[in-house]
Amino acid sequence: MKGSMKAVVKAKPEPGFEMQNVSVPSIKPDEVLVKVQATSICGTDLHIYNWDDWSASRVKPPLIMGHEVCGEVVERGEMVSNHDIGDFVSLESHVICNNCAYCRTGLGHICENTKLIGVDRDGGFAEYIAIAAQNAWTNPKDLPLEIAVLQENFGNAVHTAFAVDLRAKKVLVTGCGPVGLMTIAVAKAIGARAIYATDVSLYRIDFARRMGADLALHAVDDPVIERPARLQHRTEQRLRTFERRYLVETDLRKIHHALLPLGCGPGPLPAAAGQADGAQPRREIK
Amino acid sequence: MKGSMKAVVKAKPEPGFEMQNVSVPSIKPDEVLVKVQATSICGTDLHIYNWDDWSASRVKPPLIMGHEVCGEVVERGEMVSNHDIGDFVSLESHVICNNCAYCRTGLGHICENTKLIGVDRDGGFAEYIAIAAQNAWTNPKDLPLEIAVLQENFGNAVHTAFAVDLRAKKVLVTGCGPVGLMTIAVAKAIGARAIYATDVSLYRIDFARRMGADLALHAVDDPVIERPARLQHRTEQRLRTFERRYLVETDLRKIHHALLPLGCGPGPLPAAAGQADGAQPRREIK
Amino acid sequence: MKGSMKAVVKAKPEPGFEMQNVSVPSIKPDEVLVKVQATSICGTDLHIYNWDDWSASRVKPPLIMGHEVCGEVVERGEMVSNHDIGDFVSLESHVICNNCAYCRTGLGHICENTKLIGVDRDGGFAEYIAIAAQNAWTNPKDLPLEIAVLQENFGNAVHTAFAVDLRAKKVLVTGCGPVGLMTIAVAKAIGARAIYATDVSLYRIDFARRMGADLALHAVDDPVIERPARLQHRTEQRLRTFERRYLVETDLRKIHHALLPLGCGPGPLPAAAGQADGAQPRREIK
Amino acid sequence: MKGSMKAVVKAKPEPGFEMQNVSVPSIKPDEVLVKVQATSICGTDLHIYNWDDWSASRVKPPLIMGHEVCGEVVERGEMVSNHDIGDFVSLESHVICNNCAYCRTGLGHICENTKLIGVDRDGGFAEYIAIAAQNAWTNPKDLPLEIAVLQENFGNAVHTAFAVDLRAKKVLVTGCGPVGLMTIAVAKAIGARAIYATDVSLYRIDFARRMGADLALHAVDDPVIERPARLQHRTEQRLRTFERRYLVETDLRKIHHALLPLGCGPGPLPAAAGQADGAQPRREIK
Repeated sequence: MKGSMKAVVKAKPEPGFEMQNVSVPSIKPDEVLVKVQATSICGTDLHIYNWDDWSASRVKPPLIMGHEVCGEVVERGEMVSNHDIGDFVSLESHVICNNCAYCRTGLGHICENTKLIGVDRDGGFAEYIAIAAQNAWTNPKDLPLEIAVLQENFGNAVHTAFAVDLRAKKVLVTGCGPVGLMTIAVAKAIGARAIYATDVSLYRIDFARRMGADLALHAVDDPVIERPARLQHRTEQRLRTFERRYLVETDLRKIHHALLPLGCGPGPLPAAAGQADGAQPRREIK
Repeated sequence: MKGSMKAVVKAKPEPGFEMQNVSVPSIKPDEVLVKVQATSICGTDLHIYNWDDWSASRVKPPLIMGHEVCGEVVERGEMVSNHDIGDFVSLESHVICNNCAYCRTGLGHICENTKLIGVDRDGGFAEYIAIAAQNAWTNPKDLPLEIAVLQENFGNAVHTAFAVDLRAKKVLVTGCGPVGLMTIAVAKAIGARAIYATDVSLYRIDFARRMGADLALHAVDDPVIERPARLQHRTEQRLRTFERRYLVETDLRKIHHALLPLGCGPGPLPAAAGQADGAQPRREIK
Repeated sequence: MKGSMKAVVKAKPEPGFEMQNVSVPSIKPDEVLVKVQATSICGTDLHIYNWDDWSASRVKPPLIMGHEVCGEVVERGEMVSNHDIGDFVSLESHVICNNCAYCRTGLGHICENTKLIGVDRDGGFAEYIAIAAQNAWTNPKDLPLEIAVLQENFGNAVHTAFAVDLRAKKVLVTGCGPVGLMTIAVAKAIGARAIYATDVSLYRIDFARRMGADLALHAVDDPVIERPARLQHRTEQRLRTFERRYLVETDLRKIHHALLPLGCGPGPLPAAAGQADGAQPRREIK
Repeated sequence: MKGSMKAVVKAKPEPGFEMQNVSVPSIKPDEVLVKVQATSICGTDLHIYNWDDWSASRVKPPLIMGHEVCGEVVERGEMVSNHDIGDFVSLESHVICNNCAYCRTGLGHICENTKLIGVDRDGGFAEYIAIAAQNAWTNPKDLPLEIAVLQENFGNAVHTAFAVDLRAKKVLVTGCGPVGLMTIAVAKAIGARAIYATDVSLYRIDFARRMGADLALHAVDDPVIERPARLQHRTEQRLRTFERRYLVETDLRKIHHALLPLGCGPGPLPAAAGQADGAQPRREIK
């Protein structure tokens, strides 16, 4: 497709974004061109907008922003057989190489050549985006836009909750942003025994309860949280505090514990944390 | 069995051990009495001898020392059916409760009521020891004493090496004491692709080579070890340094990494390290 | 406890049971004596009542019947620490040896010396039963008797449904007796994608729907069942027939299939069927 | 590449092959053109040569034969980045769709659209073959041709032996053709406890011993094999017969059994046999 389009661009290595007119991207043989119908804003976009240390070290302007995208397939490359023109699709944001040892062994989610749209290559805050056909997942035609656009985040929640076997387990979701909230729902759907949630926003704590958390507390102010237990790495102790004070559990104890970090934080997590899921390591940084 | 016996005892909360005459222990219905034929000394025994912080916080004198033991079954309780008088046995040192949620679900190795002989209850630096029949493993009659007495340590090596799937994996054994050296042999036997070893003792580095390590280096002085990479938590970076400098690997990359700590160290390991083995957590402190 | 009690006994190797007066059993050091409060009747009891080939080859009269039991702990052996007098317990019916290679490696559910109460040793259709303390699971005091007595069956449903990972999977429950019906509920609770059910009883087919089956059909008469597909080993074909005719599934296909047989049937299942659950074989015959 | 080449072709639906002159194949954007340096003959080729029921139902003449191939990359499509002209490669024979639910979830080995070269599409008994770049695995330049050409078979042996955890397990390899013999070597390398082998050819039985089998027997004539135990589905009973008569095993019993069928047989295997490997089903028919 020829022509130009409007796009939200990280134009320079400094805070802020710009609305620009850029060329509609052309597609490769294994790609589709998607006409964007909705996008949503991730915390990662805020990091890049603010141009913090993480984004300064990773993002190379100029770059079109946006990695939570849904839209319509309007062109397809000669090798694409799994999509028809007109398909309504949500986009998986991580474009993988299909060629490294990880990709070749069913571990493409930790592909060492991953390019994240809107972070490592042009994204979806634009009228069109070109992306590998395998990153486009077909939706039912009548899926609401506000659901379709959140499939990427929801995938993070599913992936995190599926990383270990949560059947009959006690789960603590610490941090109840959109992905945390969705993780509560997923953990509930796959048979978690009890779901605890913490955040520092009263709005989110209440939202966690509405999503089905059995117990939702303020991570700092709630008296159940002992002062030294506030830190990230005290997760287990905090969980025990909950149990000691709130729960009467006589017949079954917590068997395993596993830290399943997700997201893009201000500093590094403990080195080994990302390994907690055993055979299926997840991305530590989205 | 009535009478007295000689035993090496931690008599007081201070450095040192004493040789004492104590009563031969009596057995419970599910226990056997073992006449000790050989014992060996673990690094843990040195910690307790020196009465360092760890041992001061855990060991309650007076206590008979010793947890690496082999010997002969000379008495058995009324409920014991899996041992005959005269059996030549090696002892598993961790006596478990068979009753907690861990024990009831096949995870007795992380029993929350574990009593370690020679640490939490009387051990085997004595003429006799009473121990649960399930902790006594029958050896062939002709197994040499110096092998039989090391079954407890060897179990640690096997358990650690089996904690993840090492088939076709690259393995770094960092710390080549007896358990580390045995781990090299086990990893080799179960199909590890390459085994790297490090230590700070030239004797042990050479021993690691004789045990089959593909590469054994001084953890501090070898120039392949970059200065900031000396620390425990830089394991992965160190491994990559090895590979970058020493190995020509074109077709297969390291797929997973997992930290499998074992032993009794001077300080805590990263909080999540003990979780590296996924569904089967191991004891972090022996 | 001295004295006699009433018991339902398989007295002779022929059809029928007898009500007899027998001695109250004495307990071993690791056992509890349970005063029976409720029992339920399993299909296995009917097999034994009718004295069919299976029961004639396994059961050795005289024997007290009954393996679905709940009651109150009224005595405990000297080694029992996990139960108090007065505990309200449900009984796991499989008494294991704790000593074979299976038991020693967390696979006691396939203990090669398993004794099933009411089948291999005296059961619970009596006023009292002596049983290993580890087979008694403490209930909340207020659990209704009709729930408590079904914990043994419910355990079969949980064990079967947990044998493979059913998250997001399609499940066919073929045979909707009590355990099958409970399996529907369990599969639903742990996130099965869709649950199909079949039986030859209209009452049970309707019950399956009330338990949450997405699709419940008559295994013989429903026209969706092709004639050659009625047989047990055509499970997969039957499932495909369902899907082809009833379901519109566009984005996800059945990834794995596994046969998880449970129960005591008139003839042998395919030899390999019991292996379907990979690392955790279940009992094929209850 | 233009021009013609010689190829061994299944020309008609009847026994036999023909040597023909055909066009050198052209490549797609994701394919490489390989100049064939060596091929080997599989039992499957004999099935197709003889035009038995299986091949008549699957193979659609005319078709170039051959699926065990190594050679040199002489052309590559525009999207190929993982191979250079001149690479010495062995070919994975199963060309997968990368698009079905299996392929998208790391289970491409059971891709439902698999095309096997030399069976479903043109193969390698020719001067050149066009194949997906991901099916070409780069060898060291100095790998002998007779090894390189057997990588496809060897992959079958590795895949079968890796399908379950064979560490410390007893393994029976029944059928000691090339893949069976290689499986003995692989099972040994990954820590099998004991390897038994059976065949009906004295040459192969002896070969099995040279590959490291601990016990190799004639499957029919050896008196250890009880007459009713000859059949394929009596594998377990046969193994027990071996153990009962030949082995003195006191401390460890076989914990699991799993049937891992591989190959193209005259009739169907038991329906459930292919499921034995739990989460990772393998192809039943090569």
